[in-house]
Amino acid sequence: MKDDRLDSIVNFCRLIDREKFIKRRTYLTDGERFENDAEHAWHLAVMALLLEEYSNEKIELSRVMSMVLIHDLVEIYAGDTFAYDYEGLKTQKEREEAAAAKLFSGLPENLAARLASLWNEFEESRTPESRFAHTLDNFQPLMLQAATDGKAWKEGNRKLSEVLRRNMHTSEGSEALWHYALDKFIRPQLENGHLSNDIVINDN
Amino acid sequence: MKDDRLDSIVNFCRLIDREKFIKRRTYLTDGERFENDAEHAWHLAVMALLLEEYSNEKIELSRVMSMVLIHDLVEIYAGDTFAYDYEGLKTQKEREEAAAAKLFSGLPENLAARLASLWNEFEESRTPESRFAHTLDNFQPLMLQAATDGKAWKEGNRKLSEVLRRNMHTSEGSEALWHYALDKFIRPQLENGHLSNDIVINDN
Repeated sequence: MKDDRLDSIVNFCRLIDREKFIKRRTYLTDGERFENDAEHAWHLAVMALLLEEYSNEKIELSRVMSMVLIHDLVEIYAGDTFAYDYEGLKTQKEREEAAAAKLFSGLPENLAARLASLWNEFEESRTPESRFAHTLDNFQPLMLQAATDGKAWKEGNRKLSEVLRRNMHTSEGSEALWHYALDKFIRPQLENGHLSNDIVINDN
Repeated sequence: MKDDRLDSIVNFCRLIDREKFIKRRTYLTDGERFENDAEHAWHLAVMALLLEEYSNEKIELSRVMSMVLIHDLVEIYAGDTFAYDYEGLKTQKEREEAAAAKLFSGLPENLAARLASLWNEFEESRTPESRFAHTLDNFQPLMLQAATDGKAWKEGNRKLSEVLRRNMHTSEGSEALWHYALDKFIRPQLENGHLSNDIVINDN
C-alpha cells in the first residue's frame, strides 16, 4: 500500500518532465531558442529568493517558490497560451481548470489538494505571495526581452499598448520591480523601435 | 544607491540564464535530447515538494528547495562535471569553489552570503536537508534513465559498479527512495542488459 503511494507520486514526477517540452515565446539571453516552461519556473523560483525584499508586502518565501515552481504544470494538458494570443486567452481559464483536475488527480489526495491549493492561490492572485509571484512571472520575460534587444517583440510587431495591458497588474506585487522594468527593459526597446510606441506611458 | 543594489541583483538574474545552456548527460523522458541544469534544478525542487515525507529525517522543505534550485549555479563558470568523468572529478571541488567565489561576488553582500551558505551546506552534506537534496539529485536522473530504458547507460557502456559507487550516499537522505530506485530504476536495466551486471547488489 505504501508502495502504491510512492508509485503514484513517482509517476507524477515522471509525467511532469513534459514541462521541459513546452515552449514559451521568449528567447533565452543567447537569442537562439525559446525558453521552456521548466526553465522559466526555475528562473522565477531563484529570482523569488533573490528579489524577495522588493515585494510590496511581507511574504512567505517558500510559498512564492512553491507557487512559481508549479504554476505552469497545467500546461502539460492545456498547452501554453501565448500572452498575445487573444483568441486562446478567452478559453484559457476553462481549459486550464480542466487540465488541473486531470493532472492532480494522479496524486495521493493530500498532495493533489496541496498542488491545487497552490495553483488556485496563484490564479486568484489575492494574497501577497501570489501577487509577488505574478510580478516575477511578468518581470522575468521582460528581462529576457531586454537582454535580446527586444527580438521577440520586433518579430511579433508588438505594440507598447499590448505590453502595458499584459502588465497592468505587475506593480501590484512590487512597485520597485515594475518601475525598474519600465525604465530598464521597456523604454530602451521603444527608443530603438523594436516595440511600437503607440501610446504614452502614464508612469505614476 | 538603492538602484545599484537592484541593478546588481538583476544582472545576476540575467547571468544565471546560462544554466539553461549547460547540458547534463541524462536524456529527458522523450529520449531525444539531454536535460540542462535549469530543467534539472526545477525538477528536483518540485520533487522535494512531493517527496518530502520520504526523507529519513525531518526537514525544512524551503531550505531543500532553495538548495536544489541553486546547487548547479557554479557550473556557469566551472562547467558540468559528468558523474562518470573520473579525471574531471579530481579537480571538480577546486574548480567549483573558485567558480562560486567569482559568481556570488556579483551580488550584494547579504545575498552572496546567503547563496554561498546554501551551496556550502549542499556540498558538505552534513544536514538532513542537504542529505535529502543529494538523494533527490541522484534519484531524479535514475528515474529519467529508467524512463528512457537506460538509453544513456547503454550508450556509455555503464556498469552496475559505477552506478552503485555514484549512489553510495543516496540512501542517507532517504532509504525509501534508494530502495525504490534500486528495484524500479536499476534492476530492470540489469535485466535487459542496458547496464552491465558486473557485481552483486548488496541490498540491505
